[in-house]
Amino acid sequence: MKPMEQRLAENATMINGYLEEALGGQEPELLGKASLHLVEAGGKRLRPYLTVKACEAVGGRAEDAVPFAAAVEFLHNFTLVHDDVMDHDDLRRGKPTVHKVYGVPMAVLAGDLLFAKVYDVALNNRPPGMPAERLIESIAKITEAAMTLCQGQALDIGFPSASEVSVDEYIEMVGAKTSSLFRACAQVGALAGGGSDEQVEALGGFAWDAGVAFQIEDDVLGVTADEQTLGKPVGSDLREGKKTLINIHALENATEDQRRRIGRAFGVEDASREDIEAAVEALREVGSIDYARGVADEYVARAFKALDAIPDSPAKEELKALVEYFVKREY
Amino acid sequence: MKPMEQRLAENATMINGYLEEALGGQEPELLGKASLHLVEAGGKRLRPYLTVKACEAVGGRAEDAVPFAAAVEFLHNFTLVHDDVMDHDDLRRGKPTVHKVYGVPMAVLAGDLLFAKVYDVALNNRPPGMPAERLIESIAKITEAAMTLCQGQALDIGFPSASEVSVDEYIEMVGAKTSSLFRACAQVGALAGGGSDEQVEALGGFAWDAGVAFQIEDDVLGVTADEQTLGKPVGSDLREGKKTLINIHALENATEDQRRRIGRAFGVEDASREDIEAAVEALREVGSIDYARGVADEYVARAFKALDAIPDSPAKEELKALVEYFVKREY
Repeated sequence: MKPMEQRLAENATMINGYLEEALGGQEPELLGKASLHLVEAGGKRLRPYLTVKACEAVGGRAEDAVPFAAAVEFLHNFTLVHDDVMDHDDLRRGKPTVHKVYGVPMAVLAGDLLFAKVYDVALNNRPPGMPAERLIESIAKITEAAMTLCQGQALDIGFPSASEVSVDEYIEMVGAKTSSLFRACAQVGALAGGGSDEQVEALGGFAWDAGVAFQIEDDVLGVTADEQTLGKPVGSDLREGKKTLINIHALENATEDQRRRIGRAFGVEDASREDIEAAVEALREVGSIDYARGVADEYVARAFKALDAIPDSPAKEELKALVEYFVKREY
Repeated sequence: MKPMEQRLAENATMINGYLEEALGGQEPELLGKASLHLVEAGGKRLRPYLTVKACEAVGGRAEDAVPFAAAVEFLHNFTLVHDDVMDHDDLRRGKPTVHKVYGVPMAVLAGDLLFAKVYDVALNNRPPGMPAERLIESIAKITEAAMTLCQGQALDIGFPSASEVSVDEYIEMVGAKTSSLFRACAQVGALAGGGSDEQVEALGGFAWDAGVAFQIEDDVLGVTADEQTLGKPVGSDLREGKKTLINIHALENATEDQRRRIGRAFGVEDASREDIEAAVEALREVGSIDYARGVADEYVARAFKALDAIPDSPAKEELKALVEYFVKREY
């Protein structure tokens, strides 16, 4: 099997051309540029990859999944553009966010256009032989994800800090903000590939659990990876007092002393490198990092088990490899 | 025929129940309330009325059009919520706008949810007997309108004042901001009612032209109606330097002296009642009000002509009466 980076890059190239063509020639030009801004900023195109591989895993052709892969990537980009407006974030994928460059009104509008494009590409590029009822089902899955993403973002806005969130609420929020779209990706890929209802459901279940594991692993990397791997300063999640599974677990389980050491970095914007290191050490002592890793592993195991309903194939192996690549990295 | 007000009110009652049910039980509660805010503020439900009557005009049952009528009303409300954010407007339908009550982040999100609900209601309430292909066609029409609405709003943001817009650009913008959704309303109503392709197109054409006439008549009312009819101070469009067909025509055709009199009110926030009256008199002299009325009449005539392709029926008469009611009012 080719290295994961190469497979993701090949898939991204295929999807990017499609995305840029779908947004090409947009009038007025400024709206077109604002809509393309984040799309062109790159990204691993993980969701399109999931869509394409789910299609292949049920015996479909990759090209039949491409319109849906583009649709889910548009949906993802739409939510990122609007989330950045809501969260007042200045940087995304290493570039200034859409509203920093084009202003809030145009960013809201660019997000809206990307949302409309979700349906435009999915409706107007039906793969040959895909029954109308299956197209409707696909669009309904995408719509369900869109509604759940709104719900997840509302939960995120509603609970601004880790101290207000329980582990269960965290899992619910990750489910809504990440897994709902992962699931839709796998479902529409399987639908485009002509999968059975059982296969569509199995791949959707796989993707849901994989999404939770991905998000938790992101939390783990935030305190264990080095700055180069992370692309942002180590301990940013701590400094920002972010709702990560690690932080939530630690706030619930730390002793007075550990809590004090964590508190010197947690939510402290100008915490020093030493404060961060001491806090991470305390998180380790509490067992919060191991706890998060354990939960991620559970979700990976559940995700893999869901794939039992799918016949063995290279695509099935690639789906597993994707999860291994993102969740089982050693640092 | 019942009075127009009564028919609109009966239709609104039917649609409102549907809209509120579709948003009911939304979690988290705050997102649900923010999404319902504008929907509950009322409105004439003109677009749902168009949808239902287009359905009946091709021999369909009103109830088969209701999910689509709800969808287009959600689309309309989504654009209003986001437009108010973009334009920093504080009042809508006599109530504070969503972002004034719930803040910009929640207003952006509420708009996004309303947009997702467009598809949710349309996809999951297919009328018995409506073929899948026709449902797909309906959703594609709605999507096309959504994309064009984004384009229209971008044009609106891009040309902030009347002096930068030609008559042709004004008509293009009105088409994108109003007629595109009017057309989709009539098209999906006709599709839900089982209309032929020719009927779908004819009703779409009717609605497009009616939309342009509606918008121009709004411009005319802005300088000819009294405050009670208008629901806002007479001459607001003048004070705000708004892009109305009347203002654009006047800026292109006024003499020096007329231009001077108009200039005392145009874009002058604290223009006095006398300044406004003198400016309106000048607009009248230039012929801008008659010009706008003439253009609206032309669009009404074209709209009515498009209906020739539809067999006579009470619904067809009601569609004509709707246009007469809104465009041919005497003041």
